[in-house]
Formats: sequence, structure tokens, C-alpha cells
Amino acid sequence: MTTPTPRFSGVVPPTVTPLLEGGGVDVASLERLVEQQLAAGVHGLFALGSSGETVFLTDADRDRALEVIVKTAGGQVPVIAGAIEPTTPRVFERVRAAERLGADAIVATAPFYAIVGPHEVERHFRAIGEATELPLLAYDIPVCVKVKLSVDLLVNLAADGVIAGIKDSSGDDVAFRQLLLRVRDEVPGADFTALTGHEVVVDGMMLAGASGSVPGLGNVDPEGYVRLHEACVSGNWTAARAEQDRLTRLFRIVDAPDPATTTGATRGVGAFKTALMLLGVLSSNAVSLPMRPLNDAETGRIRDVLVEAGLL
Amino acid sequence: MTTPTPRFSGVVPPTVTPLLEGGGVDVASLERLVEQQLAAGVHGLFALGSSGETVFLTDADRDRALEVIVKTAGGQVPVIAGAIEPTTPRVFERVRAAERLGADAIVATAPFYAIVGPHEVERHFRAIGEATELPLLAYDIPVCVKVKLSVDLLVNLAADGVIAGIKDSSGDDVAFRQLLLRVRDEVPGADFTALTGHEVVVDGMMLAGASGSVPGLGNVDPEGYVRLHEACVSGNWTAARAEQDRLTRLFRIVDAPDPATTTGATRGVGAFKTALMLLGVLSSNAVSLPMRPLNDAETGRIRDVLVEAGLL
Amino acid sequence: MTTPTPRFSGVVPPTVTPLLEGGGVDVASLERLVEQQLAAGVHGLFALGSSGETVFLTDADRDRALEVIVKTAGGQVPVIAGAIEPTTPRVFERVRAAERLGADAIVATAPFYAIVGPHEVERHFRAIGEATELPLLAYDIPVCVKVKLSVDLLVNLAADGVIAGIKDSSGDDVAFRQLLLRVRDEVPGADFTALTGHEVVVDGMMLAGASGSVPGLGNVDPEGYVRLHEACVSGNWTAARAEQDRLTRLFRIVDAPDPATTTGATRGVGAFKTALMLLGVLSSNAVSLPMRPLNDAETGRIRDVLVEAGLL
Amino acid sequence: MTTPTPRFSGVVPPTVTPLLEGGGVDVASLERLVEQQLAAGVHGLFALGSSGETVFLTDADRDRALEVIVKTAGGQVPVIAGAIEPTTPRVFERVRAAERLGADAIVATAPFYAIVGPHEVERHFRAIGEATELPLLAYDIPVCVKVKLSVDLLVNLAADGVIAGIKDSSGDDVAFRQLLLRVRDEVPGADFTALTGHEVVVDGMMLAGASGSVPGLGNVDPEGYVRLHEACVSGNWTAARAEQDRLTRLFRIVDAPDPATTTGATRGVGAFKTALMLLGVLSSNAVSLPMRPLNDAETGRIRDVLVEAGLL
Repeated sequence: MTTPTPRFSGVVPPTVTPLLEGGGVDVASLERLVEQQLAAGVHGLFALGSSGETVFLTDADRDRALEVIVKTAGGQVPVIAGAIEPTTPRVFERVRAAERLGADAIVATAPFYAIVGPHEVERHFRAIGEATELPLLAYDIPVCVKVKLSVDLLVNLAADGVIAGIKDSSGDDVAFRQLLLRVRDEVPGADFTALTGHEVVVDGMMLAGASGSVPGLGNVDPEGYVRLHEACVSGNWTAARAEQDRLTRLFRIVDAPDPATTTGATRGVGAFKTALMLLGVLSSNAVSLPMRPLNDAETGRIRDVLVEAGLL
Repeated sequence: MTTPTPRFSGVVPPTVTPLLEGGGVDVASLERLVEQQLAAGVHGLFALGSSGETVFLTDADRDRALEVIVKTAGGQVPVIAGAIEPTTPRVFERVRAAERLGADAIVATAPFYAIVGPHEVERHFRAIGEATELPLLAYDIPVCVKVKLSVDLLVNLAADGVIAGIKDSSGDDVAFRQLLLRVRDEVPGADFTALTGHEVVVDGMMLAGASGSVPGLGNVDPEGYVRLHEACVSGNWTAARAEQDRLTRLFRIVDAPDPATTTGATRGVGAFKTALMLLGVLSSNAVSLPMRPLNDAETGRIRDVLVEAGLL
Repeated sequence: MTTPTPRFSGVVPPTVTPLLEGGGVDVASLERLVEQQLAAGVHGLFALGSSGETVFLTDADRDRALEVIVKTAGGQVPVIAGAIEPTTPRVFERVRAAERLGADAIVATAPFYAIVGPHEVERHFRAIGEATELPLLAYDIPVCVKVKLSVDLLVNLAADGVIAGIKDSSGDDVAFRQLLLRVRDEVPGADFTALTGHEVVVDGMMLAGASGSVPGLGNVDPEGYVRLHEACVSGNWTAARAEQDRLTRLFRIVDAPDPATTTGATRGVGAFKTALMLLGVLSSNAVSLPMRPLNDAETGRIRDVLVEAGLL
Repeated sequence: MTTPTPRFSGVVPPTVTPLLEGGGVDVASLERLVEQQLAAGVHGLFALGSSGETVFLTDADRDRALEVIVKTAGGQVPVIAGAIEPTTPRVFERVRAAERLGADAIVATAPFYAIVGPHEVERHFRAIGEATELPLLAYDIPVCVKVKLSVDLLVNLAADGVIAGIKDSSGDDVAFRQLLLRVRDEVPGADFTALTGHEVVVDGMMLAGASGSVPGLGNVDPEGYVRLHEACVSGNWTAARAEQDRLTRLFRIVDAPDPATTTGATRGVGAFKTALMLLGVLSSNAVSLPMRPLNDAETGRIRDVLVEAGLL
């Protein structure tokens, strides 16, 4: 394949933001987490993404978290930073912060809360692209912003050099495959990063042409995702499938929280943080309001899955 | 009826935030707008709501707008302030700002972007209620946050004194009627404010027991909404209906923007601001990115509607 | 007001379809129900609507139910009949059946299951309109078909004589008000029926210009809805509001089913049928699969509401 | 892998239903289509699915189409038949028809139009399973029925022997992967068919453990899908990816219809039928109302894609 390897490839976990019980970023835990990730061989870090509780953090805490991640990464791997706000002027402010704190790329979603349509979405990305020298990745996450970025829009933004790639959390692997093929056909030679956020189908998405993954579960088992990535890029799909199946079973930690009293965010971030606490990386499984930390019974179920997976 | 008049009654327009062409709050225009509203007899002002472009403004601009509104209102009418952010910790920051700047009540929505369920939504409102001495109004706006506040939740929050009322932009007048009746039956004597955000059915919602309205169109024709309100409270429903029909026709200014290149936010806020510019209240119809200001053709169509309505 | 009274005005309850325990239409119960409705003074009957379980019935049962309703109504009031199928060719078949069995008008929804857009929706209604001499009412029920009929489309269809009116179960009273006003302004003199399906805001919708209502709860308390209608048309809005409040409280029978094991259809139709059984009109509260009949505890709670409402 | 090959494996295209210009099934074209499919080596046929316009066809036309498909297949490959109706009693009628006409399995969706929840959905599938001796496949197609079948529900139905498998058109490949793994872990030895309906990610879904595919595009290029399937089962993932990429490009025929005047169903079925007309298999590209047949310009664009793909 003559397509060059995009700038941001491989395993780029969306770093969770450890919190102190009384509030504020738990810097020591965050440093341990980043060091553990680097030791595992991850290829990049995604700061201030959904798993990083970015929309739950005050700007001060966002800055603190990004600062620690960039400093601890120490240039060994690129740090891409979420600039996730409902509208363009507010994204600009986060872009300025990311630039100031040394991020290597910006990740931005479509507008949210604001009632917008295709023209406003396009104007949003183009304005952000013009506002920074950093590469811009479009974050496609309809479950949060309630709009799917269309393949047509993404191809156009890529062709015009507005975006350097995509972080796909759309769950729409059909559109993802079509996007990858159209960029290859219509923007030949493009350095287009295509990171999948779906940690249980990384093998299939790599087969479809993804350049890497942004697995929330990669906070918990970065080695597994690095092995999975290496199997994919070396064409060992049987090994990739086996590793993916193992990780998919590990992903069942998100089923541990009581479904009657928890939803989405709490179940995902809460499970990742609790697993990291059990693994000794985080000092606490504290999460931001309005989420609640997982309780003892839920923590026990997560411990069981970790034991079964051989991580504990 | 023995139910007391709630604290926040009558016409409480969601003040638009005039912007300078180069960015930033247009203070002179905002002062003119507030003065015009007071002269028309409005009963309160809602700063930093959806019509106020709150999710488009930087925190600095939000503070500036709220400061000007409070100062210009000068205590003549209460100012309720939106504290609209995706999650609880960020709402806390806006609550602090509203308190500091002299708002008389807080308006907060359900969380957005974050994937939450009923338990998280309830925890969110309870935490906000505990965090401030100011009265808290729940802002029910599923078109923006993608979740409808359930009647059960609202009745419970009212019974527990967490919320002092609701600002209903749900469009679900069935739920609104049921809510009003259940609060009356289950929280007898409650000082429960029920403001409808639907400017074209204020008469029907007042008949259903609303205490007032938050009409975006009230920026443009506050006198009309004051007349409508007075007709309703005096039981002159025939006059109310006629005034409502007139205002509903005026509301057609939101159909002026080209539907092929504008959506929701742009059409509403853009039309209100353009009408206010034509009426000499605002110096410009500038809107925040990613919206675009209405063009000449669109402005012309708005002028036609204003002329037909006798406002120009 | 110079607008003529539309053909289908007043209270037009969507007749439930009583079922035998072993399956099939319970003709004796259906006859009793229709007779009770006529005695109460309803102004029409809506056969084979959502409350009539039309999408749960085989074609044979649909025909049987419509036949009994038409025959029992005996020409005293018009019978409008649902022709509710996913697509045009299948609606045609139900239109033929309705014509054959003596219905006075057809009620059809937008297509469902099929993935269609505005052009297909318009083509659908125009094709149905051409296929029958009977008046056609557009049934706007996005909660079932997942698409809201746009005000523009409805005004155009009215102007072209394709539809004779609307049965609005959209819950979007804002659009309903705009529709009524635009038809009045743009199709002057039109004999346009506007029936609201929202039984708890009939007063407000009549104030907005509705010609009548299609209250599911009107199966249970037709006298109440007739009184409500009469208060509205005579301009006695205070009496209308009081009657509406009473009926809104009665509507709480739909809260009786256990929310953990029932949803939408089961709660509504199940509650109406159970109330009618308790009132001695129906022999059983049997409902179609996959719904389940309400159990003893649920039936007891409905009995309590009926007693409180003075109906038992 | 010790998991046995499920009953329904391989390429099982959802047969389109050719129509005469004046209405009714075009039997000669349907026979040609089925014969072409058999000659290409498909492993089964799915009659009366979404691509087969099942919700557009009268019961008489449905019966005619199924009869022709079964007869032409002549037992060479199994024929699975859609029994797609909004509710259980109506599905029963289609199950009876499928049994009578010789189908080898039933495919049923969740209820639609009816407002139901998880309990009703489960009761629906269990009732259908009890009503027939034929294997039952659950058809997961939220884009049409607006509800996603939960992984928990599907695992339970599989464990209890209610369903023999799934036809997945959910687009949610994350859930698909989790389902496959959970069935393998929790229902060991199950003969569980897992067919993906997403023609552009068959390679990834086969890697994830699918037993085969139901590609609408397989009507147009069955040989391609048979080659793709064989590459997957033989572990030649590089060849599979290349074939999948080729087919994904061919799938662009669905982009040929004018997006301003066509939507979903029209674009997919319309494109497949037009391509088959150009390939000489169908006599016409007629589609059911409210769809419209593709016009000359659209047909020309489809011809271009077919030429580029080497099919013309």
C-alpha cells in the first residue's frame, strides 16, 4: 500500500482524569497513569476526551490535567487534546489553552446544545481549522452531540486541508469504511488519521483501513491494545481476533455498575477508574458530579473480571 | 383560586445578547434593549438563556452581559440568569458568577453531552439546589439537551424544595398541564413558578395554569406579550386569543432566513436580532459563530413582516 | 368568526376495540360501547385508530370492528376510519375496505418502517387523496411513525384539496397553532377539520382554533368531553378549564400500570379497557399481543381513580 | 474453532421483488434473478426483507413473491422469509403464510408503530417462537423499527432456544461483536446464525465471528460476495479486504439518486433495481409507492459505476 502512515497512528488511549476525593485533579495518579501508558508502548495520548471527563471539568482542572499529561509524556509520544465546547467561540478558547500547554493536535466535535444544521457544522470546523496551526481531528460522537458527521462533509474537509483526520466514536462502521475508502480515492496521498474509538472492534476497523485506535479500555490494559495493534499492522489477523476477543471480554467491566442506578458516562468512566484503582494506578475511583463513584458490590464485580482476565 | 402568585410571574423575555461586529458584547445596544423592555412593562428578564446565545458566549462575555442587564434593570424587575453548562461542576461556576453579579434566580438545564440517565439528572438538580441560596428554576429544553425532564422528577424536586419552578421549552404541553395539576394537588401552597417558553401558545398555557411566559419574540414586541398576559390574568380569553394570533403571525419572522442554509439557532436568534436592528434597538444583527448574520434578502422579508404587524 | 364549522367537529373518541379472551372482536361489548358513546352525545367516532389497536388487529378483525361501529352508529354521527399501514399500496387496501364498510372519512399517517423523506411523505398523501372520494384526514403521530408532518406540507395539502383536515397527536402544540393560523390565512374559507388527540389540553387547543378532539379518554368519560367541548364553543373558558382539569386527573388511570413491566401502548389502551370493564361497558380488559392485560393490583389502582372521579 | 457452522451461513442476499410497471410481481424477472443468484453460488435467499419491499407489498404480492422464490430455489439453498408486521397477531398471519409456502425459516423484527418497551419486545419474540416449528431469526433493524434489540435480550432468547440467530442491520458493530462473544461464552455449542446486513463491512464482521451476510448489494454482484465470503472463511483476510473495498466502491450506486428528491428506501432499492435492469436481469426498475423509479440521469450515473466496476 502506498498510503503513508498518518501522523497519529497506533494506540492513543483517551486518558482518564484522576480526581481527588475532595475535588481537583489527582496529579500523582495522573502521572502514574501516563507513565504506565508509556511503558506499555502506546503511540500517543488523547487528553481531555470524553473518557477524560472533559465536559465535567472546570477550565482550571482541564488546564491542570493537560499540563500534567504533556509534561509527563515528555515528547515521547504526541498528545492530542480535546477542545470540546458547544460552539465555535468557546472552542477557540480551548484551542488557545491547548496551544499554550503544548498539545500536538486538536480534537473538536460538532456543536452541541445549539440547534444547528449542516451549514453551521461545516462553518464550525472551518473556523476552528483557520484558528490554529495545529492539526485538527474531527471527533464524530453522535451519542453525545446528537449529530453524525456526514461522509461528504468529512471528505470535503479533508480535501481542503481543514482536518488532518477523524476520531470516530460514531458506532457507524459502515460510514467509517466508506469514509476511509473515499479519502483514499478522492484525496490521494493525504496524511489522514483515522482513529476508531470502538475498543471492541479495533481488529475489524484496522482491516477496514484505520490508522489506529482510541480505546477507553486502553487505560486499563494498554499492553493488550498494543499487541492488538501490532498484530493488525503485521497482518496477523488470527492473532488480532484472539486479542480483540480477550479485550472484548475485559470490556465487560462496564456491565458491573448497577443498571438501575447508573447510565452511560458513570458506567464507562466509573468502571475504568475503578479498575485502575484496583490495579494500583489510581488512588481513588472518584468521578465528577452528577456521576457517582462505583460502590463496593460494583467494585467487586470489576475485580472478578480483572482476575479472570489475568490482570489481577 | 387560592394558589398564590408565584415569585416569577408575567412576561419574562429571554434577553438576546447584542454583539459588536468585531466580537464582544454591544453594551450600548443591550442597555437600549433592556430599557425598552422595562418601558413596555415586562415583569422580569431572563439573562443568558438560549435566545441570549449563552452557549455561544465566552465566560467573560457572559459576565459582561449579565452585569449590564442587572445594572440596567436596576431592581425594577427580577433578573433570572441561565447557568447552562453540560455538567454539575461547571454549572457551579456559573452559579457563583450569577450570585456575584446580582441575579435573582438561577435557571439550569439537565446535563448535556454527557451520557446520563434519570439518576444523574436528579443528582444534578439536587446538587445545584444545595449549592445556592437563590431560587432554582429547572429549564426543560429537550430540543437542546435531548432529554425531557419527567413530570415525576419535577414534582419530587418541587415537593422537596429543590426547585422553585420550571421554564418549559419542551413543546410538550401535555406534560406541562399534568405537571401544573400535580404540583397543585401534591405540593399544596407551593410557590411554584411555571413559565412557558412557547411564544405562540401562551394563551393556552396560561389557561392551563402557567404563571407567565419567556417569549423569545418578546424581545421584539414586549408590549404585545404584556397585553396578552394581562388579558389572560383578567380572564379575557377572547382578547388573549386575538393578541396571541397576532403575535403568532409576527413570529413568522423566523421563517425569513433561507431554509437551505440556516437551521434552528440561526433562524430564531438571527431573526430576533435582525428585527431589533430594523426597529432601531440594536446597532447590528451580528450573531456568534457558527451562525451567520441574516443577509439582505432575509432582512427584507423580516422588514415586510414587521410592517404588516404595524411595528415598522 | 366567519370560518365555517368544519365537517368533523366536536368530540370524536377513538373507539377502543374490545376483544374476546380467546381472540377476536367482542362484538357485544363494542356495540355497548358505541351505544354509550352516542348516548353521551359524542359528535363522531374514530374507528381503527391507535387506541383501537388497529396495528394489532388482523384485517379480518379490523373489518369486523369497523362494520360493527358503522352499523351501531347508524348514521347518527359520522365514522372516520383509520387506514393505517406502512406504505401507500397497503393503505389503498384499507381505504377500499373503509369505503366498502361505510366509513365517512379516511385517516392516514405518514409511511412508517420504510425509510422515507419529505418527498415520499407528500407523494404518499397525494396518492391516497387521489385514490378515494372520501375526505382524507392526515394523522400526525410522530411518536408512532417517527416523523412530524411539517406545517408547510399540511398547508400545501390543504390548499390543494388533498386533505380535509388533520388529526393531531404530535404533542407539538406550537406547530398546531401555526398550522391553524396559516390555513386560516392562506386557504380562506377552507372546510378544514383540526382535531386534537391530546385529551389533557383540549381547552387550550380549542382556544387555539381546533374544531374538536379525539380523546382516548373519551372512551371512558364521553360526557365529560362533551361538556368540555360545549364550554369551549360557548366561550365559557373558566368552565372549560375546570372540566379539563377534572379530566386530566382522570387521565391518571394511565399511570396505574406498573412502569417496570409496561410501556406506552399497554399503559394507555390497557388502562382505558380496564376502566371500561370496571364501568360495565366491556366484558374484559383483554388486549392484543405483545401487550398484556392489566393485573389485579393495576386494576385496583384504576378503580381508585374512577371512584375519586365519581364515575364508580 | 469448535463452534459448529450454523444452519444459515454464507451469502444470503435479500432478494428484491421485481414489479410490473402496472403493479404486481414481475414473475419472469424474479425467476431470472433467483436463477442468477443460484448460479453465482449464494448460500441462501432472504425473501420479503426490507430490500424486498415487504412493507410496500400487499399480502397477495408477498405470497406471490415468496412462492416464486421458493419454487425457483428448488431446495438448492434455504429460503428464509420475512414476517414483518407491526405486532404479534399480524406477524402470526405472515408466519402461517411462510409455512404454507415452504420457507425454511422466519425473520421477524421488533414491533413497530406500536409504542412498546423491553417487556413487550421480549413477549413478541417468545410468542412468535412458540407459534412456529420453523427456526426464527431476530431482525435487528433500528433504522426502521426505531428500537435496538439489546444484547441481553438476544442472548436470553438464544439461550432459551427462542431464536436460532440474528439478522443484524443495526449498524452497531460494537453490540454485534459483544453479542457473538456472549453467545459463544454463555450458550456453548449453540447453532446460532449471525448474519450481517452491512454489505460494506462484511470482512470485519466475519473477522468478528459472523456466519455470513445478507447484502442488498448481493442482488447486483452475488459473485463478489461469494468470493468475499470464501476469502473470509479461508482466512485470507488480505484478499477479503480487497474484495470488500471493490464492493464498497460498487455500493456507491446508492449515491446516484438525487439527494434533494429521494430518501433511504428509494435510494437503496431504487439503485439495486436500476442496476439489475441495466444488467438485463430485471425488465424494469419499477418501485412501489410512495417511492419513485430512478430517472434517466440517475440511471446514467448507476451505469457509470457499473462500468467502472467491470460489471457492464
